Amino acid sequence: MSRIKLELSYDGTNYHGWQKQNNAVTIQETLERSLCKIYKTSIETTGASRTDTGVHAKQQVVTFQVPFTIPSERLPYALNANLPPDIVVYNASEVPEDFHPRYHAVQKTYSYTMLMRKFMDPMLRNSVLFVAEGLDIEKMQYAANQFVGTHDFSAFRTVGSSVKSSVRTIYKSELTQSGEILEYHITGDGFLYNMVRIIVGTLIEVGRGNILAEEISEIIASKDRNQAGKTAPPQGLCLEAIYY
Amino acid sequence: MSRIKLELSYDGTNYHGWQKQNNAVTIQETLERSLCKIYKTSIETTGASRTDTGVHAKQQVVTFQVPFTIPSERLPYALNANLPPDIVVYNASEVPEDFHPRYHAVQKTYSYTMLMRKFMDPMLRNSVLFVAEGLDIEKMQYAANQFVGTHDFSAFRTVGSSVKSSVRTIYKSELTQSGEILEYHITGDGFLYNMVRIIVGTLIEVGRGNILAEEISEIIASKDRNQAGKTAPPQGLCLEAIYY
Repeated sequence: MSRIKLELSYDGTNYHGWQKQNNAVTIQETLERSLCKIYKTSIETTGASRTDTGVHAKQQVVTFQVPFTIPSERLPYALNANLPPDIVVYNASEVPEDFHPRYHAVQKTYSYTMLMRKFMDPMLRNSVLFVAEGLDIEKMQYAANQFVGTHDFSAFRTVGSSVKSSVRTIYKSELTQSGEILEYHITGDGFLYNMVRIIVGTLIEVGRGNILAEEISEIIASKDRNQAGKTAPPQGLCLEAIYY
Repeated sequence: MSRIKLELSYDGTNYHGWQKQNNAVTIQETLERSLCKIYKTSIETTGASRTDTGVHAKQQVVTFQVPFTIPSERLPYALNANLPPDIVVYNASEVPEDFHPRYHAVQKTYSYTMLMRKFMDPMLRNSVLFVAEGLDIEKMQYAANQFVGTHDFSAFRTVGSSVKSSVRTIYKSELTQSGEILEYHITGDGFLYNMVRIIVGTLIEVGRGNILAEEISEIIASKDRNQAGKTAPPQGLCLEAIYY
């Protein structure tokens, strides 16, 4: 037996998220089917991040035990030949027996992409949020800066998850504009359920003048989900990188 | 009666091209259904360019006669509300009775996008051609330059179309690289059937060293389709702009 770590990208549009579940096609299940074909036995995988329905990944990290070893440089090709084109494995390596993709992750980066123009670009409909024009980006950046640091993010989580602590440390929270594309990048030691999407929903309200940029610290301090903005839709969100 | 000109963008992935046909969903048919709902009568449209299955458009131009006038600034919103999200109308205007979107077009620009890396990016699978790494881009640009000018492009057309003359003038033929993305732009007074895709297929063969960059003029002069490269697949092709 040996332990394999995979790195993969996917377009989450046609999946009910990463995590296996009954009666819905997920990325984990699709990957495990492909692994089963190669290893001729059922393989249980562990993913670093449970991306939601419609959320994408540039770098998802997955581990599993295998009964026999296929050369790491060949495994991505063998898997991609069996995977649908919206899931691409681009790296495989053997890792120590105790490596855990979630517990050992020290930082994660997510991006959220918005399109600012009069009409949607049909090519980008599954990968950006259409926000029309007229957002005040300077105010949004001022607001974004206030998420950096160690805070209790209770106001920026969807209740119902079983995670004990709602304290997280954010290292980077940055907007970059390139023409009609507005991209938000956030790096932290971890994220609560829907946290990035609620932060983005709040930043958009700031950009529209419905929430003051100066209020963000108070909203964080309130620990009250009702003080923050709406949960932004999933299609703009992408798991960019996981750091170990 | 008045004559309306629409400008629209679409993701051609899920359509059998622009042109109406039996037993296949096309963009023209989908647009006409949407127009029918708004004008309460069947509307016949004329498109500037017959994009093929899987080919995209940033700017397609379409005209039709209408029985009554809807304010031009409202028409795109009314149409988009009835169109699927992969077709977006972004402009409408009244035009003179004799305006023809195809005959009056003086130039068109197409783009063709390639992705140069080890593995495909799943987010781009419907909008780029995966060409792996190792293309000689300088040689490709040298080859691309040779298409500029007025030539008989018989070597770069798929036979079977009924167009009389195979002489076309190319004003611009340019490659631009931005990281892993290689984009080709070509502007001409018109294009033969599959002409851009055959040019791109030939440029890729030049990049791989299978055709010499210096041979392009001879291939053009040969007027022999067998001398040129393969027809590149449709998904990288996009109708960028039509000039009147």
